Amino acid sequence: MNTSRAKVTSREFIDLINETIPLSRFFDFSFIELDRGKVSLRMDASDIQLRAGGTLNGPSIMTLADTALYAAVLSQIGMEAMALTSNLNFHFLRRPKPNPLIAEATLIKVGKRSVTGIVHILSEGNPEPICFASGAYSLPDDLA
Amino acid sequence: MNTSRAKVTSREFIDLINETIPLSRFFDFSFIELDRGKVSLRMDASDIQLRAGGTLNGPSIMTLADTALYAAVLSQIGMEAMALTSNLNFHFLRRPKPNPLIAEATLIKVGKRSVTGIVHILSEGNPEPICFASGAYSLPDDLA
Amino acid sequence: MNTSRAKVTSREFIDLINETIPLSRFFDFSFIELDRGKVSLRMDASDIQLRAGGTLNGPSIMTLADTALYAAVLSQIGMEAMALTSNLNFHFLRRPKPNPLIAEATLIKVGKRSVTGIVHILSEGNPEPICFASGAYSLPDDLA
Amino acid sequence: MNTSRAKVTSREFIDLINETIPLSRFFDFSFIELDRGKVSLRMDASDIQLRAGGTLNGPSIMTLADTALYAAVLSQIGMEAMALTSNLNFHFLRRPKPNPLIAEATLIKVGKRSVTGIVHILSEGNPEPICFASGAYSLPDDLA
Repeated sequence: MNTSRAKVTSREFIDLINETIPLSRFFDFSFIELDRGKVSLRMDASDIQLRAGGTLNGPSIMTLADTALYAAVLSQIGMEAMALTSNLNFHFLRRPKPNPLIAEATLIKVGKRSVTGIVHILSEGNPEPICFASGAYSLPDDLA
Repeated sequence: MNTSRAKVTSREFIDLINETIPLSRFFDFSFIELDRGKVSLRMDASDIQLRAGGTLNGPSIMTLADTALYAAVLSQIGMEAMALTSNLNFHFLRRPKPNPLIAEATLIKVGKRSVTGIVHILSEGNPEPICFASGAYSLPDDLA
Repeated sequence: MNTSRAKVTSREFIDLINETIPLSRFFDFSFIELDRGKVSLRMDASDIQLRAGGTLNGPSIMTLADTALYAAVLSQIGMEAMALTSNLNFHFLRRPKPNPLIAEATLIKVGKRSVTGIVHILSEGNPEPICFASGAYSLPDDLA
Repeated sequence: MNTSRAKVTSREFIDLINETIPLSRFFDFSFIELDRGKVSLRMDASDIQLRAGGTLNGPSIMTLADTALYAAVLSQIGMEAMALTSNLNFHFLRRPKPNPLIAEATLIKVGKRSVTGIVHILSEGNPEPICFASGAYSLPDDLA
């Protein structure tokens, strides 16, 4: 992967998802790192991400993973592209405490027609991942 | 799979997820079918499930899939159980129009320690699935 | 899916994999059904597919699943194409007895750049699947 | 993960799979590293792993991934255990040249009932992975 400067800024990405994905407004995302092909995205847990038993619900964790991977994809190919998720796979490993979550995404392939990445999701203050995800995003033809 | 009567009613399940998963309140779910091991769950698309380009966003589709599979699991093992998602896999197949979605979930294994199911997600009025998911849920030890 | 006549015959497909995938020679495959987008492929279990405890080993089951899905893909797009597997996901559900296995594959999307399918794998004489797989195959650009 | 000494040696593991999984005899595996929870396994490509076009076939790559993950699992829990694969997910990233492959497996969760790991597969001499896989193995009850 090219690890030079990301082709999207934190501000541009957060604005993009807030405008285009209304659900994002209920998630408090902030970037810890946004390099080309490598992203660390934090999600502060509000009541809406909770689940009975004081843990975080699966859909919120999946939303975080998809958002971090999508940011990694745009960091590599730029904002203009309309990358679409083609597949995602999740292993839920441990029940997280209601702490902020941190998603560490890395691209493992940047092709002409698709980009693939992996993401470890950690609960703040704990080095062992609570979830692991991998996914591929297809790129529009005019990038091919 | 035992296809006799479901061990949870629509009302009980909807109440359960509204109480325990706050995010669910933003989703308008209703059951078309709720048999033991076989569920058809409808999600009316509100603004929050939309995405730029008039399509539905991935996290909303994943939330629907997980909810339908979870209902299928509880239909088989009952409400008392605290089944936890252990893995989920998604193939996003077509960009849905902003129509209601229907998730058709079927269990393919009911074990002592885990339950596995698959789900086809359709856009109302179109027979071709827009997403396909499969996943496994682990059961608490006391059921084992 | 178009359910008209398959674009490949059993003979052509078996010859193709025997020629191009040497590992196939150790597998005794025969088609029960080969329609366009819908395939039922049988694998007779020889010693080589066994595993301690009298069950079948995972790699043999994965080889069967991939072969059945690949046949379904070629049944739809024809022999000339060089479809490549882009992802595969497996749920191993039950330990099979050392009986013949039957893989029932169905396509769920036929796109210009990719084809996606699912496959239930059964142990002969038992209606409950021992494995479930799903996967996507990318098509060469000149088909796009 | 505990990174102390592996609970299985290279010799024990290779003997185990040769005895219990006949298919393994057609694969030339050797360990580069075998620590607790962390494994690097090399597969020399013979004719049987080839595929038309001078590349390696998918089932051989899947066999390597499963074997490396299984070794990582046994390195953590020991030889006595009968760990069973419960799910595996593969992203095929690049067409490998007919070179030896190296599978680098790491465990990301060691639970009482299941162990989960990831594996990057590289073609010798190239730093970019040709395949990425993740999978979970269930442990027998008496370990729980």
